[in-house]
Amino acid sequence: MGHLLQSISSPQDLQWLDSGQLKQLCSEIREQIIQTISTNGGHLASNLGVVELTVALHCVFESPKDQIVWDVGHQSYTHKMLTGRLNRFETIRMRGGISGFPNRLESPHDPLTSGHSSTSISAALGIFTAKQLKDEPGHVISVIGDGALTGGLAYEGMNNAGRLHKNFIVVLNDNKMSISRNVGSMARYLARIRTKPSYFRIKGNIENILDHLPGLGRPFRHALTKSKSVLKQLLYNSTIFEDMGFYYYGPFDGHDTAKLIEVFSNVKSIQHPVLIHVLTRKGKGYSFAEENPKAFHGISSFNVETGKAVKSPENFSSAFGKKICSLAAEDNRICAITAAMQEGTGLKDFSKQYPERFFDTGIAEEHAITFAGGLACGGMLPVFAVYSSFLQRGYDQLIHDVALQRTKVVLAVDRAGIVGEDGETHQGIFDTAFLRTVPGITIYSPSYYDELQSCLQQAIYGCDGIAAVRYPRGTQLFRPFDFHSSRNPYDLYGNDSADIVLVTYGRLFSNACQAMAFMKGQGLQTRILKLNQIFPIDPAAIQNVLNAKAVYFFEEGITQGGIGEYFSYLLSQSSYSGKFHLRAIRGFVMHQTMVQAMEQLGLSAGEMAKLITSECSN
Amino acid sequence: MGHLLQSISSPQDLQWLDSGQLKQLCSEIREQIIQTISTNGGHLASNLGVVELTVALHCVFESPKDQIVWDVGHQSYTHKMLTGRLNRFETIRMRGGISGFPNRLESPHDPLTSGHSSTSISAALGIFTAKQLKDEPGHVISVIGDGALTGGLAYEGMNNAGRLHKNFIVVLNDNKMSISRNVGSMARYLARIRTKPSYFRIKGNIENILDHLPGLGRPFRHALTKSKSVLKQLLYNSTIFEDMGFYYYGPFDGHDTAKLIEVFSNVKSIQHPVLIHVLTRKGKGYSFAEENPKAFHGISSFNVETGKAVKSPENFSSAFGKKICSLAAEDNRICAITAAMQEGTGLKDFSKQYPERFFDTGIAEEHAITFAGGLACGGMLPVFAVYSSFLQRGYDQLIHDVALQRTKVVLAVDRAGIVGEDGETHQGIFDTAFLRTVPGITIYSPSYYDELQSCLQQAIYGCDGIAAVRYPRGTQLFRPFDFHSSRNPYDLYGNDSADIVLVTYGRLFSNACQAMAFMKGQGLQTRILKLNQIFPIDPAAIQNVLNAKAVYFFEEGITQGGIGEYFSYLLSQSSYSGKFHLRAIRGFVMHQTMVQAMEQLGLSAGEMAKLITSECSN
Repeated sequence: MGHLLQSISSPQDLQWLDSGQLKQLCSEIREQIIQTISTNGGHLASNLGVVELTVALHCVFESPKDQIVWDVGHQSYTHKMLTGRLNRFETIRMRGGISGFPNRLESPHDPLTSGHSSTSISAALGIFTAKQLKDEPGHVISVIGDGALTGGLAYEGMNNAGRLHKNFIVVLNDNKMSISRNVGSMARYLARIRTKPSYFRIKGNIENILDHLPGLGRPFRHALTKSKSVLKQLLYNSTIFEDMGFYYYGPFDGHDTAKLIEVFSNVKSIQHPVLIHVLTRKGKGYSFAEENPKAFHGISSFNVETGKAVKSPENFSSAFGKKICSLAAEDNRICAITAAMQEGTGLKDFSKQYPERFFDTGIAEEHAITFAGGLACGGMLPVFAVYSSFLQRGYDQLIHDVALQRTKVVLAVDRAGIVGEDGETHQGIFDTAFLRTVPGITIYSPSYYDELQSCLQQAIYGCDGIAAVRYPRGTQLFRPFDFHSSRNPYDLYGNDSADIVLVTYGRLFSNACQAMAFMKGQGLQTRILKLNQIFPIDPAAIQNVLNAKAVYFFEEGITQGGIGEYFSYLLSQSSYSGKFHLRAIRGFVMHQTMVQAMEQLGLSAGEMAKLITSECSN
Repeated sequence: MGHLLQSISSPQDLQWLDSGQLKQLCSEIREQIIQTISTNGGHLASNLGVVELTVALHCVFESPKDQIVWDVGHQSYTHKMLTGRLNRFETIRMRGGISGFPNRLESPHDPLTSGHSSTSISAALGIFTAKQLKDEPGHVISVIGDGALTGGLAYEGMNNAGRLHKNFIVVLNDNKMSISRNVGSMARYLARIRTKPSYFRIKGNIENILDHLPGLGRPFRHALTKSKSVLKQLLYNSTIFEDMGFYYYGPFDGHDTAKLIEVFSNVKSIQHPVLIHVLTRKGKGYSFAEENPKAFHGISSFNVETGKAVKSPENFSSAFGKKICSLAAEDNRICAITAAMQEGTGLKDFSKQYPERFFDTGIAEEHAITFAGGLACGGMLPVFAVYSSFLQRGYDQLIHDVALQRTKVVLAVDRAGIVGEDGETHQGIFDTAFLRTVPGITIYSPSYYDELQSCLQQAIYGCDGIAAVRYPRGTQLFRPFDFHSSRNPYDLYGNDSADIVLVTYGRLFSNACQAMAFMKGQGLQTRILKLNQIFPIDPAAIQNVLNAKAVYFFEEGITQGGIGEYFSYLLSQSSYSGKFHLRAIRGFVMHQTMVQAMEQLGLSAGEMAKLITSECSN
């Protein structure tokens, strides 16, 4: 670890460094980030992009009295190192270690726990308003990427913050892309103002340009300044941000620490909302990441020398991607939609093969669903591929703009269940519970790639109305050689005559199989009811367990309102008289590996077997 | 009914009318709207505001080949009359009659069912894209109010539509207010461009103004036109809508039918997204509504001559409003937040008494919740008063921006349960199911005003974390003289020894009491478990029914994931061996009176008694 970095135990220590030392510090920070992420995995490109920006913020503002709200939060590594977490930095994203995202419970320097996009302006406005009401000193700064600006919540935040008459700072961290390349009018707009530095840099001093326009000059400037012409209005309100009530400054080089320090020092005394437009380069300082920022957005461990990650094998996302392409080849009504997750959801091939039927909405899940509803009203077959955790954003749109229209939209719910190291904000544990409240929905939860593909086919052609296929992050798990998917709403596996039944769905089937094998070895016979269609549940599935002595339901999803409770209700309606035990997830799940989380939640094969043998062996 | 109006059986009939006749038609339409709403109730002011606009749209466009998407849809009455629904217009909002909102199932002229705000641009973009992909002719027009523009979804829609290279029309129906007076930067921005007609009217012909500026003139214009100066760029990109990729035209007088016809005829051939800014007056043509548009937004029946509605007595909203004021007097941490529903949620007094702690976010539920989360992180006690149906918008924010922060935010969930005549889009039937999936939440469901007030107190001070108090639209129902609220998580009422138990919560308790009395008259003894805290349910409440022979759970909410299923699961964990019957709501509920809906859903006292006596009498 670099010696300058080691000397920083709190942001105050930065004030002793001169500009050369700050430069050296940034380089040490970069090295630390690359080394740590190459081992632990994490968000590389976004963090490398904001090293100077973060250092400059901490040079000027006094955290935690001043509070910095990082939008999404996948760029907070430098912030963590500078705010007393350097000695724990190597534990990042590991069980018991620090989180890969800002976390209120971790440090007073993190005013907000985050992980989802576009929340920072609204949350910062709340934090700032509380300060005002309590008459507490301190600035509140939110740092938001250009990608996050594609989310409507950011706009709602600006719309509400713009009427303040106080210092309220938004830093627009513009790296010309969000996760994938940024889309939409706002992106095009930013591209335009990015190329006009000479104008925008001297905002508030517009007369200067007028002086230098050919054929014009002072007389015109005078007329303009004195007259109440609309033109003047226009000149002073020149960016969309000013239209939203902010003063706009920028764009500035986001890797020029000295310049940023100067800018932040100047704006902190302005009693008005200000937006500072900063240009950064994703992956800055690590050539492989600069050249391929998408690949280095959120990554697993990699080789620092070669930039090569362990080549990811086939996974659920790619299995989805293949199937949706082959279905689209046969049916030109099929459209694919993503909210800025083209690569993550496996839609890269689709986007190339069927560009006219591929839609990247930006980080705008609400729009994606309402747009899908419109496509469906118009006779298309839209498939929205989205991470479970982000689908939460579109709950109302699923009800109001799809289900209520009595049309078909298919949801390909990726990252359903435990996601591992990204932690609390990214776990896909709510979709089972909230999706099944949507009238008319059918929900599939396959365990293997081939099942995913057949479920997708069924979701599109085999049921009416809205349908969801949910599948986990990563690769499929253990599959018994003698298990054959029936393509029916449920499968039975194990000793037909056993009176202890494990009921489960999705990849937990793998764990259940291993638990069953283990218990069999111990002389305890069990069988498994594997649900493929988890909502509505086929009444015949219930019939299969009515004669059981005990039913153990294992669920990789939230308990409250989940499939287990529903199964319990169905049992009660069928006069089941045996024991029913439900083990599901009761709340937020911390960052750790998926396997560790399964263990902790009692959903590993070992924990399943332990529960059942402890209750049934005697 | 006016004779001209009667002659219109489809939009094509409009083409035979001259401008004088169109004016006469508009006046007949207004009269019809006023007469019908004075009887049926409905949205008066918004509909009176768009009569000319709607007529003009139907003169120029060919519905249903061209499709008009009405944002929210509370302004679609004229559209309904002109598109073949005149003879059913008097049935509007009545059971079996036409809906008060656009409805796909009702007419091919309604491309989308709606009721929630800010969806129209996204949905229209989907419908339009489907047309393009299928190579179908026809325009798609969305009509959106300035209030709906405060919702982030509208911005997401613009951000995605702005990159089209096709004709795509958004009509901004600017009446200077949404439901309450409009708020935020966008409102201020619109106010500014509204006052600059001379400039904006001649958009695309900017040189004209320059010619007329004092002291300038042709030489300047020439320099400007020829040079590649930034100034020119600036002049040609002058509104926020142009920044978002739209061509902007306006503002135009929204009550000048001829002018609107001219404008629409011109823009329909532009191969680019266009936004037409139209100024209308809410309540236009009915003096009482013009003077007090808020009161005539959504109303019950009223006297046409006097403008007087049946004076609404105390209701749940006003009971909430009183209590929150008295709590705020004692505790200066309490803040109240509304998303454009200041009057509807009973916060008018609060806004006057505690203006610095009152926040109207515009129609922006996501922001409202994230902002509340920020306030809570800053040490305040925010209470967000919101209609159940609109709270669906903030599901992710509840999880990510409140629950995950481990702070306290209180939700005052108004219009929970059946709302009556507004129908499908407005029923508050999902909140029980989705709220209880939020980790750490406590949910209260009072039956009476005094209970609401004590629950609110408990939600604020009596539990940790996020808490919701949910209560229905309108007034409290029957209360037995001998029932006394215990202020405990549950109450018992009726014959202690009865082995048939009705379990319910909220206002259904009134129906259950009447059902119990009726059955008692028939010799069938029952008792009632009334849940006040519906999540989590107090284990002692369950103990009280374990000895029952039969439990009947009645729920004014969705079955899937609701409280009844949860209760069933708790019973199964307590080895309950009796019968469990759950009657709740299975899907969308059509427009009709609340009492009719209760009957239809089997939740009226009579239907409750019928179910129980049919099963238990013999």
